[in-house]
Amino acid sequence: MIIVLKPGISKQQESSVLAEIRKRGYRPHVMRGVARIVIGAIGDELTHASLETLVTEFPAAVESVMPVQKRYKLVSREAHPVSSTVTIRGHVIGGKKLQVMAGPCSVESEKQLLTTAVAVKAAGATILRGGAFKPRTSPYEFQGLGEKGLKLLAKARRETGLAVITELLSENHTDLVAEYTDIIQIGARNAQNFQLLSAAAKTGKPVLLKRGLSMKIEEWLLAGEYILANENPNLMFCERGIRTFETYTRNTLDLSAIPIIKKESHCPIVIDPSQGAGRADLVAAMCKGAVAMGADALLIEVHPNPAEAWSDGAQQLSLELFATLMDELRPFIQAAGRE
Amino acid sequence: MIIVLKPGISKQQESSVLAEIRKRGYRPHVMRGVARIVIGAIGDELTHASLETLVTEFPAAVESVMPVQKRYKLVSREAHPVSSTVTIRGHVIGGKKLQVMAGPCSVESEKQLLTTAVAVKAAGATILRGGAFKPRTSPYEFQGLGEKGLKLLAKARRETGLAVITELLSENHTDLVAEYTDIIQIGARNAQNFQLLSAAAKTGKPVLLKRGLSMKIEEWLLAGEYILANENPNLMFCERGIRTFETYTRNTLDLSAIPIIKKESHCPIVIDPSQGAGRADLVAAMCKGAVAMGADALLIEVHPNPAEAWSDGAQQLSLELFATLMDELRPFIQAAGRE
Amino acid sequence: MIIVLKPGISKQQESSVLAEIRKRGYRPHVMRGVARIVIGAIGDELTHASLETLVTEFPAAVESVMPVQKRYKLVSREAHPVSSTVTIRGHVIGGKKLQVMAGPCSVESEKQLLTTAVAVKAAGATILRGGAFKPRTSPYEFQGLGEKGLKLLAKARRETGLAVITELLSENHTDLVAEYTDIIQIGARNAQNFQLLSAAAKTGKPVLLKRGLSMKIEEWLLAGEYILANENPNLMFCERGIRTFETYTRNTLDLSAIPIIKKESHCPIVIDPSQGAGRADLVAAMCKGAVAMGADALLIEVHPNPAEAWSDGAQQLSLELFATLMDELRPFIQAAGRE
Amino acid sequence: MIIVLKPGISKQQESSVLAEIRKRGYRPHVMRGVARIVIGAIGDELTHASLETLVTEFPAAVESVMPVQKRYKLVSREAHPVSSTVTIRGHVIGGKKLQVMAGPCSVESEKQLLTTAVAVKAAGATILRGGAFKPRTSPYEFQGLGEKGLKLLAKARRETGLAVITELLSENHTDLVAEYTDIIQIGARNAQNFQLLSAAAKTGKPVLLKRGLSMKIEEWLLAGEYILANENPNLMFCERGIRTFETYTRNTLDLSAIPIIKKESHCPIVIDPSQGAGRADLVAAMCKGAVAMGADALLIEVHPNPAEAWSDGAQQLSLELFATLMDELRPFIQAAGRE
Repeated sequence: MIIVLKPGISKQQESSVLAEIRKRGYRPHVMRGVARIVIGAIGDELTHASLETLVTEFPAAVESVMPVQKRYKLVSREAHPVSSTVTIRGHVIGGKKLQVMAGPCSVESEKQLLTTAVAVKAAGATILRGGAFKPRTSPYEFQGLGEKGLKLLAKARRETGLAVITELLSENHTDLVAEYTDIIQIGARNAQNFQLLSAAAKTGKPVLLKRGLSMKIEEWLLAGEYILANENPNLMFCERGIRTFETYTRNTLDLSAIPIIKKESHCPIVIDPSQGAGRADLVAAMCKGAVAMGADALLIEVHPNPAEAWSDGAQQLSLELFATLMDELRPFIQAAGRE
Repeated sequence: MIIVLKPGISKQQESSVLAEIRKRGYRPHVMRGVARIVIGAIGDELTHASLETLVTEFPAAVESVMPVQKRYKLVSREAHPVSSTVTIRGHVIGGKKLQVMAGPCSVESEKQLLTTAVAVKAAGATILRGGAFKPRTSPYEFQGLGEKGLKLLAKARRETGLAVITELLSENHTDLVAEYTDIIQIGARNAQNFQLLSAAAKTGKPVLLKRGLSMKIEEWLLAGEYILANENPNLMFCERGIRTFETYTRNTLDLSAIPIIKKESHCPIVIDPSQGAGRADLVAAMCKGAVAMGADALLIEVHPNPAEAWSDGAQQLSLELFATLMDELRPFIQAAGRE
Repeated sequence: MIIVLKPGISKQQESSVLAEIRKRGYRPHVMRGVARIVIGAIGDELTHASLETLVTEFPAAVESVMPVQKRYKLVSREAHPVSSTVTIRGHVIGGKKLQVMAGPCSVESEKQLLTTAVAVKAAGATILRGGAFKPRTSPYEFQGLGEKGLKLLAKARRETGLAVITELLSENHTDLVAEYTDIIQIGARNAQNFQLLSAAAKTGKPVLLKRGLSMKIEEWLLAGEYILANENPNLMFCERGIRTFETYTRNTLDLSAIPIIKKESHCPIVIDPSQGAGRADLVAAMCKGAVAMGADALLIEVHPNPAEAWSDGAQQLSLELFATLMDELRPFIQAAGRE
Repeated sequence: MIIVLKPGISKQQESSVLAEIRKRGYRPHVMRGVARIVIGAIGDELTHASLETLVTEFPAAVESVMPVQKRYKLVSREAHPVSSTVTIRGHVIGGKKLQVMAGPCSVESEKQLLTTAVAVKAAGATILRGGAFKPRTSPYEFQGLGEKGLKLLAKARRETGLAVITELLSENHTDLVAEYTDIIQIGARNAQNFQLLSAAAKTGKPVLLKRGLSMKIEEWLLAGEYILANENPNLMFCERGIRTFETYTRNTLDLSAIPIIKKESHCPIVIDPSQGAGRADLVAAMCKGAVAMGADALLIEVHPNPAEAWSDGAQQLSLELFATLMDELRPFIQAAGRE
């Protein structure tokens, strides 16, 4: 910790602060600067009592306290310099091949899901997405088919060989969802639901962690830490747009998250342009940008008939548009040195 | 729904859009304006299929689609013009008396909690706050005493007569927490954890719903709708700061939420200036503003020794500062026509 | 400056960083911590070359660089512990009396302005506001009466004795505006137009500096520094709402700016609830909060007929509502120990 | 305009609103919906008095008022379906070739500028950037070489054949800057300095308009409208990062601005990843994303020795890193179908 003192304080005030720092188990190191005295408090910030309260305890003497250590460990590239990969039914995420996860926002019926599954597989996707439990802003909106939806996902997997990803919404559904899915998705609204994160981790299934609606990168990494700290190494981060003042799009897709996560963490990074923009007409451009910037996978909403979707129709691609997009992505995948 | 068409579209394009609107069960009403054709689609937006997909289905013809109805019902003042109140052990929230909820961020020990309880009661608080289960950004931080903390809260209630509020973090703790607490608090990170909201509502206990870190007022009202729709009328909204670009404070306390919630909803509004600012030195000014603007209650973090708090020490008031604050608030409570 | 090194770097890497710090004129002070080495670089940050580039120059060795000194000087309370006041035609802003500045968004006609001036004076205002040059988001909107508007303000001052505040939009208007006004207002969109700030300062007239639409407190204080550094001591800060994700209000009025500016600076703080909310129905509550939290003055938009206003009609109070508001504020002014 | 009435209003209230709509020159068109009455007010919103004040004038009857028309005209793709291009000394921006503008944040010396100019030209840039007048957050920071800087830019142009772009900060410098530069840059802090926009437009020089720090796309387009409305057709938009809650980067580069500007406007779009991220280590990834998403040009900060830069050293690339970047971009330029 670095403690910055106010200018012009007395010798006695300085001594009181130093005594308090020692009392909390740190070794103070005083630097007399031009304008201010700065104290380096030496000791492990993760195990000692915080010094951040000095600002309120010594308001006349302490100007600010700055932590020095990073708070995340297991997810950090520092701890694990080599990029890690997650393998799902033989498909490697984080490796040379760009993976595409595609499917409807919500599972609605056998026909809707199977039609989509067959089409996205033909276009090159390897993982099928589909919500069985849906978090809805209003209690009056469609909340998902529940277990029936999970069974349809399993059926689509049997018939197409695609792997499956679906969202876990409630600790109470953990075993049920883990029984059917290959990847557990944690949604943006639950990104700091730490109980749910721990429950998901304990299933041993790979976890895709979406960024919260206004989550700082550091908080996102720390939320990921809950997965690895529960002894599940198969974590993927997924950027899906952050909340800003802009109203043209539902969210602002923060593609800079790709190089930042690559720099700070060893875990794969997935981009969800459908949620990120909330508009189907922006998805193709977003995907191209994501691929060029080094995303390991894409998560795209596709529906055989977006007009009749039971949720988020405005952001789902039709089967035809998805196939076109996959074609258009090829040169960018190649340019990025991927397959 | 209002559908705005693009300028210069053909008669045939117009007909296709009209046909689609009818197909979804709305009655279209065409208005030919100066620059554009606008269609009013008459029908209940809450029960019919959405028309928002028209933008992507008819990209050459449809410019925008605007909903007309408000999405929240039971929490709205429209549905319930008289302000509602929540009564807890005889203390009325939303009535003439300003209620003060005070206590430590986390329950740490019997001595810490009882000392605080006695002091805040003496200063005028009627409800004791204290976290037994703590949501922590990092898995390496203190996560709360759990059931032991709940028992200490119950003991403090027996000894002081104060009512008790504590946070519910997990569906799995619902019965346990409901057994001990008088008010269930839903924290900012779980404000859109709809499963948890429903579980809390079903206990029948009054629920205090904090605003999410970047929640729009409309989303907050809709989250509250989950409580009332589960037949629990005892809902309180609690503003605790929103996330902005400012870094001087941890969050930006949005006091305009007070008149807005009063206008849009009949439920009481509580202000949490401790989380809102994240700095003890700003709490007093925030409380004065909140009282003047019509808050029904305040939720304040108080600790016998903030320097040694196990969580969020920088934002907790000492017992002395809390007593001083309560004195300073009196003229503002009076000016606001409260007791 | 504090330089945090990465864990596990070599002795040679450390030496290179130290050499570079010395080369730029700082004296390095090494602290060997538990997890990392931290270097305190002693020297005046305001006159020496920055060390922030070390992060990119020594990417394998340097993790982060943190400045220690505050960048603002003349506006800081540190430099000037006693609160300063600004006196305009005998009215003291920042003293015991709460001052109210009121008037129309735009000056439209002699009748409109004089009617308003007489009414706001009768209700207790001491300063008349009115825009003669208007910054408009669209080039097709009313841009203000220009010099004719300034002349009408001067006439209203002669007839009522009210002081006058109006906005300066262009360096080219500086002399003209200074000739007519008592206070120069710098609008939110020009809050970092440093040329305009310097030009305004040099007129010697008191300056009211609005906070930019997404300005951090530190940037606002630094913008104020441009006034004092140009030898004009008569600076007032004016909070008028910041941009957030919320769409219910036009902006989010950040009332926490009041205690923060009071803490960090000696200059008076003014609150503009009309721009802040963009809705007349929220103005009264905002004013009460501002007074309770210690604002030195209020800046309120008032129009004899808001429905016919040439700009921002939705946020202007009628003469009757303004008079009612002034009555309602009295107990809060008293509670705050003001007159 | 669409006027939504509150549920359950009286026949008389409805009549009053209708009368007022007619009085302001609109033809009202009543639609009786399931839950509410909605009125379409037919008439040109750009020439008639606004109806938005109805909300405050008829608070018991009017719930909301929604504009229907877009406020920007000349910059819109609707008005000009074919993409426009800007030609500078033979280099076409908005055509098939991706243009690169590169150079130092500030012009510091002849040697610094010429070294950079020669190097960026060799690497493939066609336009030289360099600040002669610098907007600085603090009055104590380097404010640019002024006219001397402009002369150095002109010299670098003579010696290398590169075109030149530099920022205009003050109306008073308009003629001076226009004399030396090929493109006038309007910075983020002046993006709504409408006087400066008009002055820049009137020089007839091409204008590059940066997005303001928290500017909505609609406001940005309207600011661009000030250029075209002043009869200057040579406008380019430049995204340079918006302000969000994230603190890892200085700003959040909003790459979705590329497809949105392409959709809404016919003007070219330029990306500035240096300002956008504020970190040199993120620039390469940002450039790849920008190219893949269809940017017409890049604006990149390059310095022969970033460590000794007089401003923003942390975000400038060295000459070597710039050359490497240009090589790395080639496959993405090809993938995007550009040259």
